[in-house]
Amino acid sequence: MLDRIEGKRAVIEALRSGVPIAKVLLADNVQRDSLIKDILRKAEQRDIDVDLVPRRKLDEMSASSSHDRRKDRVAAGTKGAGKSAKTQAPNDDRKDAHQGIIALAEPFRYASVSEIISRSDADFEEHQCSLVVVCDHITDAGNLGAIIRSAESVGAAGLIIANKRAAQVGPVTYKTSAGAVSHLAIAQVANIANTLEVLKDKGFWVAGATEHAEECIWDTNLEGRIAIVMGNEGDGISRLVLEHCDLAMSIPQMGEISSLNVAQSSTVCMYEWLRQNRAGFESEA
Amino acid sequence: MLDRIEGKRAVIEALRSGVPIAKVLLADNVQRDSLIKDILRKAEQRDIDVDLVPRRKLDEMSASSSHDRRKDRVAAGTKGAGKSAKTQAPNDDRKDAHQGIIALAEPFRYASVSEIISRSDADFEEHQCSLVVVCDHITDAGNLGAIIRSAESVGAAGLIIANKRAAQVGPVTYKTSAGAVSHLAIAQVANIANTLEVLKDKGFWVAGATEHAEECIWDTNLEGRIAIVMGNEGDGISRLVLEHCDLAMSIPQMGEISSLNVAQSSTVCMYEWLRQNRAGFESEA
Repeated sequence: MLDRIEGKRAVIEALRSGVPIAKVLLADNVQRDSLIKDILRKAEQRDIDVDLVPRRKLDEMSASSSHDRRKDRVAAGTKGAGKSAKTQAPNDDRKDAHQGIIALAEPFRYASVSEIISRSDADFEEHQCSLVVVCDHITDAGNLGAIIRSAESVGAAGLIIANKRAAQVGPVTYKTSAGAVSHLAIAQVANIANTLEVLKDKGFWVAGATEHAEECIWDTNLEGRIAIVMGNEGDGISRLVLEHCDLAMSIPQMGEISSLNVAQSSTVCMYEWLRQNRAGFESEA
Repeated sequence: MLDRIEGKRAVIEALRSGVPIAKVLLADNVQRDSLIKDILRKAEQRDIDVDLVPRRKLDEMSASSSHDRRKDRVAAGTKGAGKSAKTQAPNDDRKDAHQGIIALAEPFRYASVSEIISRSDADFEEHQCSLVVVCDHITDAGNLGAIIRSAESVGAAGLIIANKRAAQVGPVTYKTSAGAVSHLAIAQVANIANTLEVLKDKGFWVAGATEHAEECIWDTNLEGRIAIVMGNEGDGISRLVLEHCDLAMSIPQMGEISSLNVAQSSTVCMYEWLRQNRAGFESEA
């Protein structure tokens, strides 16, 4: 089943940010304005088929999705501050939300937790360290994308997200991760707490980032096989999940307002992991 | 002269993100939809006057700004990925871009470089360290906001931006900085390279973040009075500005793609400054 991306701006953003698009459907009576021309040019560059179809067909596809569009939107992880959510939002109540164009995207291929663990074994062998990032119900797709970007950048073995009530990989994530989403193993799980126990069984130390921790990241031993848990934007890590962490660590904040968002906090934690484990990367150089 | 913020979504975002708004002008014939009701509620909460005016008056104000709207948009720093830019964009060519509502915002009060230096003296006295962040033509208002947020969070003395061809403080910056913009001294300068010389004269070491540097942030001495220079999204730090840096430092990236954006890179550099100088903050505790 292919994901539908509707509307001119959403489609051009998806094309630009590398969402794997199988096909673009264009209404045969669509006005070839500059956005449509951009889309056609970009589709040609990426060698993506563009089919001309009667507008009625797009109406039907769009209508069939409209009753569960709310669901789709959360599933696509566009609840947050991302562009696509924004550009799609004003169209919600219109019949021609598709504006004469619908792109059909390949669904993102999630990894399994075991795949991530295998990768972490390989990382550990090579660098004597490995990082898995666990997102405890991050809801903003833009934040998820930024976390993916940082995780890829420090060489994490993978990222684990909840499969419900949380941002999933969608067009916004492709965009805000600047394509890093295609280079990182990402797994969906039903139960974060259980997954932490699985990781512990495999030799991971689980470190939860929370402002309530007494020990700060610089005093926390992050050497070796580490799972860093980042909490939800509003409430942080849930009580239950925190109980499954081996240790809790805080990020020092010296300003008047405690203002770091979860994406920035994640970046700081991940880079602290990398700093403490740098020897394992230098020995190979 | 007050800044104009036009359109329902732009006004509600500005109200939510704490932009200092002097007054809201509402067309007397505007339809009281849910967004307008939100705006009225929020304005009342913040004790902001709402004046009912003939729609024609808003048309005139909007028309008088439309010829230089392009300029305004860059000046307001909405060239980038922020929400306001996005929500305003589709209205650009309409006559009623204001949608029956215009908010008048107090212009942001920039600090002077001397004010930032005074603050840095106070910081140095208290913590034996001080940080000034210099943005060499960051163009995305969302990135600028995120950098402001991190700078406030590590307790920077201030931030310096170029006064042309760069994102300025505007509604998007308020939003993406999550209000941190009101707690950080920000100065505009005509010439970044000259400003670095002024900082050096005052005892700052100037460290430029660039992927071309051989030494990484962890091996760079960031103790004491430090100015961190962050480059533009596309090209990094300009050659001229780099020549005025005392040292260059890179951020290690272990992934397949070099993917950190300037906001994330800034956060990593600023937190490395804080880590190296933490003793100065701990002694007071």
